[in-house]
Amino acid sequence: MNGHLIKEGDNPDITKERKTATFCVTKLAEFIYEGPENIKRRQEILEYVERHPEFEDKVPVEFMTREERIERNAQKAVAMTDHADCIDGSDFFGEGMYYQTLIMGRDFHGMLLHYSMFLQCIQSQCNEEQLDKWLPLTVLRGIIGTYAQTELGHGTNLKKLETTATYDPKTKEFVLNCPTITAAKWWPGGLGKTCTHAIVMAQLYTNGQCRGPHPFIVQLRNFDNHMPLSGITIGDIGPKFGVNGADNGFLLFKNCRIPRENMLMKYAQVLPNGEYIAPKHSKLGYGAMVFTRSIMIRDQAFLLSAATVIATRYSAIRRQGEIIENKGEVQIIDYQTQQFRIFPQISRAFAFLLAASEIRDMYLRYMEESQTSSNISLLGELHALSCGLKAIVSFETAQGIEQCRLSCGGHGYSDASGLPQLYAFAVGGCTYEGENIVMLLQVAKILMKVVKNIKDGTAKLASITEYLGRVGDKKSNFKDYKTTNGDVIINDFENIARNQIFMAYDKFDNNLKEYPYEEAVNKSGIEMSKGTRLHVKLYLVKNFYQKALKIEDTEVKNVVMSLWKLYAFDMLSHSTGALKYNNYMDDIQIRNIKEGIYYYLNKIRPNAVGIVDSFNMSDRELHSVLGRRDGNVYENLLKWAKQSQLNKKEVLSTFEKYFEPMMKEGRSKI
Amino acid sequence: MNGHLIKEGDNPDITKERKTATFCVTKLAEFIYEGPENIKRRQEILEYVERHPEFEDKVPVEFMTREERIERNAQKAVAMTDHADCIDGSDFFGEGMYYQTLIMGRDFHGMLLHYSMFLQCIQSQCNEEQLDKWLPLTVLRGIIGTYAQTELGHGTNLKKLETTATYDPKTKEFVLNCPTITAAKWWPGGLGKTCTHAIVMAQLYTNGQCRGPHPFIVQLRNFDNHMPLSGITIGDIGPKFGVNGADNGFLLFKNCRIPRENMLMKYAQVLPNGEYIAPKHSKLGYGAMVFTRSIMIRDQAFLLSAATVIATRYSAIRRQGEIIENKGEVQIIDYQTQQFRIFPQISRAFAFLLAASEIRDMYLRYMEESQTSSNISLLGELHALSCGLKAIVSFETAQGIEQCRLSCGGHGYSDASGLPQLYAFAVGGCTYEGENIVMLLQVAKILMKVVKNIKDGTAKLASITEYLGRVGDKKSNFKDYKTTNGDVIINDFENIARNQIFMAYDKFDNNLKEYPYEEAVNKSGIEMSKGTRLHVKLYLVKNFYQKALKIEDTEVKNVVMSLWKLYAFDMLSHSTGALKYNNYMDDIQIRNIKEGIYYYLNKIRPNAVGIVDSFNMSDRELHSVLGRRDGNVYENLLKWAKQSQLNKKEVLSTFEKYFEPMMKEGRSKI
Repeated sequence: MNGHLIKEGDNPDITKERKTATFCVTKLAEFIYEGPENIKRRQEILEYVERHPEFEDKVPVEFMTREERIERNAQKAVAMTDHADCIDGSDFFGEGMYYQTLIMGRDFHGMLLHYSMFLQCIQSQCNEEQLDKWLPLTVLRGIIGTYAQTELGHGTNLKKLETTATYDPKTKEFVLNCPTITAAKWWPGGLGKTCTHAIVMAQLYTNGQCRGPHPFIVQLRNFDNHMPLSGITIGDIGPKFGVNGADNGFLLFKNCRIPRENMLMKYAQVLPNGEYIAPKHSKLGYGAMVFTRSIMIRDQAFLLSAATVIATRYSAIRRQGEIIENKGEVQIIDYQTQQFRIFPQISRAFAFLLAASEIRDMYLRYMEESQTSSNISLLGELHALSCGLKAIVSFETAQGIEQCRLSCGGHGYSDASGLPQLYAFAVGGCTYEGENIVMLLQVAKILMKVVKNIKDGTAKLASITEYLGRVGDKKSNFKDYKTTNGDVIINDFENIARNQIFMAYDKFDNNLKEYPYEEAVNKSGIEMSKGTRLHVKLYLVKNFYQKALKIEDTEVKNVVMSLWKLYAFDMLSHSTGALKYNNYMDDIQIRNIKEGIYYYLNKIRPNAVGIVDSFNMSDRELHSVLGRRDGNVYENLLKWAKQSQLNKKEVLSTFEKYFEPMMKEGRSKI
Repeated sequence: MNGHLIKEGDNPDITKERKTATFCVTKLAEFIYEGPENIKRRQEILEYVERHPEFEDKVPVEFMTREERIERNAQKAVAMTDHADCIDGSDFFGEGMYYQTLIMGRDFHGMLLHYSMFLQCIQSQCNEEQLDKWLPLTVLRGIIGTYAQTELGHGTNLKKLETTATYDPKTKEFVLNCPTITAAKWWPGGLGKTCTHAIVMAQLYTNGQCRGPHPFIVQLRNFDNHMPLSGITIGDIGPKFGVNGADNGFLLFKNCRIPRENMLMKYAQVLPNGEYIAPKHSKLGYGAMVFTRSIMIRDQAFLLSAATVIATRYSAIRRQGEIIENKGEVQIIDYQTQQFRIFPQISRAFAFLLAASEIRDMYLRYMEESQTSSNISLLGELHALSCGLKAIVSFETAQGIEQCRLSCGGHGYSDASGLPQLYAFAVGGCTYEGENIVMLLQVAKILMKVVKNIKDGTAKLASITEYLGRVGDKKSNFKDYKTTNGDVIINDFENIARNQIFMAYDKFDNNLKEYPYEEAVNKSGIEMSKGTRLHVKLYLVKNFYQKALKIEDTEVKNVVMSLWKLYAFDMLSHSTGALKYNNYMDDIQIRNIKEGIYYYLNKIRPNAVGIVDSFNMSDRELHSVLGRRDGNVYENLLKWAKQSQLNKKEVLSTFEKYFEPMMKEGRSKI
């Protein structure tokens, strides 16, 4: 039934895998991408991109210098936005992100923040007149914008930003300054060389008073020759682990003047005389952040998926070692240890994708309902969950990609595998959009409040934290990895999450007796973040299960359920200490969970290639010699290597300059 | 007492840390480097390197293109070996490696394998005449050699190498061929562009019979113009995760002829008439491998140490967030979660360094004793241990560096931190010199044999596995993190390691009843490698403790003991399930172990900067703006960024070519 994936000339080992899969890959793909329509659209967008020669890299990006990458990405960014009508604008973060990935690969570009941050700020922070001025300029690409908040010495703690915008009522201008070197804006994408404008967060001073950080729109470079305007020093911050095709930048202000109208005034205002009008709503909307994070989680999940496709396919064609003498070398995917490296990553990718889609749906449902009722508590919990998911998903994605990379042995270290680039790209997600540990602690603080309310009897628990209000069983009902019902397994997760969160609460509450709030949080930080982790993992495992239950096609359901079981047992096996707390589980149950892992690894084995095929990733998207659909890895590794920068000449100048004189001298002494 | 580390103009936050340290940094450094003499030599070598302008990179390596790096590394490799007399030749792997690190940083170079592999093979595999011919050429650098074993399709399993060397008795030559594409030699350092010669492992065919893989010395390029010789195709394999200043290469033979004398004939021989003479000793010496691995473990430990220096110093000068309102932002090293990220890595670095030194000493002791007695069993166990250590140390080093990198937030993602380069460099160690999972299984097989012998009553246990023959306590004697004796803690480790190894044995033994040996190993692979992990970790924790016990200076001993306790409790806290197996520990003991972690984090905190100062790493060796001795990070980040390739011009050509036309068109529509 998966015959359409098999082509003449494919590596026979990979063809064999595709023939033995027990389920329909198309159906699983439709489950992953939420319907056949989306699969069709992916295909159309792919064909569109492949049809357009301007998106074809003549030299693969990994052979380019940084300058060449920047140049090429600029060209592609303009071409990409020229052709933006090929995607459904209302689905910018679905189709749009896919389209961008196909063109940009694992890299950013100078116009990324123009769309992802600048436009969004213009839309949400401008008053009417400002909107009239800036929105058309932004949408029509008459300017290129970025968003400048982070400073050299200041990240997470917004309140302590140092850049100042001081109102001068005489000229009706704001004067921007970076009073210290730590006030330099640092990191904004596209800021270094590309952008003409930035929304700058700066401490607003007016009438001698500081009013805290506010957004200002600042023109950075002039339209004629792109030179920085007066009072502005600007540049690229240099090479990074990944995203070197993007010009993340720094920015220093020295008495840079902008008109009063350039403060974004939808909420707070400064009147011409310098009078400050405070915003009515001081809180940032949680809603947009929940939505943004659901997108980020999905993107991370796809990065992990890509790594599993590469590692699984390569493991199917790589043969090494004889398990039975004289029977020939085996596919390395037949090693239990290899399966244990890769298959749990596949199951994680599923868990993350399904969580991202559920969070997005919950958010949309909430938005709809909030028109009529006003159940704010759900949004708070949803926000917390999305922060927690961001931290867990980005960290486990990075770890998972590295496991996949290591499972490919030496070839995984080569850029030909695509895996080093995937890792360096993905792992940035642990830091941006909220540093992970900060995120975990933020969520933990909310959980502490929930527990407090439960203890006080004042808790109104939404579905996500409902389990915290329940009293668990004394003993686990887990019997056997084959027969035990999913609800029992989820119950076990609830039990360990609840225990940890209450344990953290006790510690925190004790510390509160001695120390002020933030100090008490700090002294309980490790236990609290463990609590968040288990809370999030419980959500992941529960949501995965619920989605799997709803699958109609029996074979697809079997496959997804096997992945779920592996996911659940693998996680439980990392929490055996917690499971044995208070003798909730006994040694036989624990051992059975481990046996469950081996059982499901084995069960997944024949379907592994089929499952990763269902991620529906083209060779263009994967950008990996090891992950090729056709499995013809070796000849293409050689072809790839021949493009190396160093192979342009047979003999490098290093011979004449250094090695020849050295060797001649050496030989002359004999 | 640490006043000599403090200089005028240092960041006051870091000076404060140095002033409050409770111990003498020099004394701890002497402990780490095994005596004051070694510290002095480090200083002398550093000064030597700094005195020579040819070792000074005018442009920091991270701003160079791949071609520039190759060029620069060639120049430095020749200069480095020109000046090799500045180091004690008898301590090539001590002083030599340090000298190389100072010059090459986190990169390899084209001549690396000439010294680390080629020379060694010449010395150990040549007969007398061959030695006379090749040794002077090698030592005098009249040729540059490499070692070509790994093939495109073959790594670990030597027996299946495909390159052939067929003896032609008519011409008295060997004819080398790569019969398939998977036979291409792949990865050897320096092979791509630098080397003139290689020792090639190839299947020897003579008189129509295959005799298995043998080493041949092959000239690759001619002396006059460095062009590849007839029958040889050669090139660079392209960019990699790290070590891009080295030209790892590929090599294809097509009827390449070499004289009979080029087979290295110390052991096996082919006579002029084609007759094959088998080697008397077929086994490779374990001894050299133990020694090599002890060096690799030490190198990895220093990479981890470097990461901890960077992260700790940066965490001391970075301020973020207010724990107590209006008391100003705190040093991020004051966050418990930050300490938990970094301090366990410091303790690991100690554990690894001390293990490397002990393994080396045990090996040397064994070599001495083996002259008189013949206790082979120790060498076997030592070999096993060194394989296991290689796997654990390289993996945990990589993980630890990433934790350090992540703890530096956004700046950790910049190459300015030095951390991305450290990671990419170190993580290669998980794959080369024996892929980690393969290593773990190899050790596990040996452990399985040990258990079998114990059960049979035939075991002769050396000190490393002695614990496996003992019957453990039913209950842990662990009482309290402050008072419990180290031996009790080690006893707990022995208990969980023994349990796991015996559990793995039972599984393996059961599988043996149904399956042939290798299949039984495979089906028990995960449990067996867990057994190895615990065996190695037990060794690490035990050896660390024994070395710490011997420290004479009380303050230094206190500091090292705190690190040991943190190390032990952190590891135990990851094995709580194992500790609760058979109710060996109760919940109160487990909780106390966790409390121990918080206690020792807190205890280490005031000495953290002092401890990492004791690693005695100069700014040159660290190559990190974040890890600077003086703590003046921010101004130097800006200075570093200004060197970015993109900042050479204020306006890039991307403006005129792409962005200007786009923006003009956009603005024209308004």
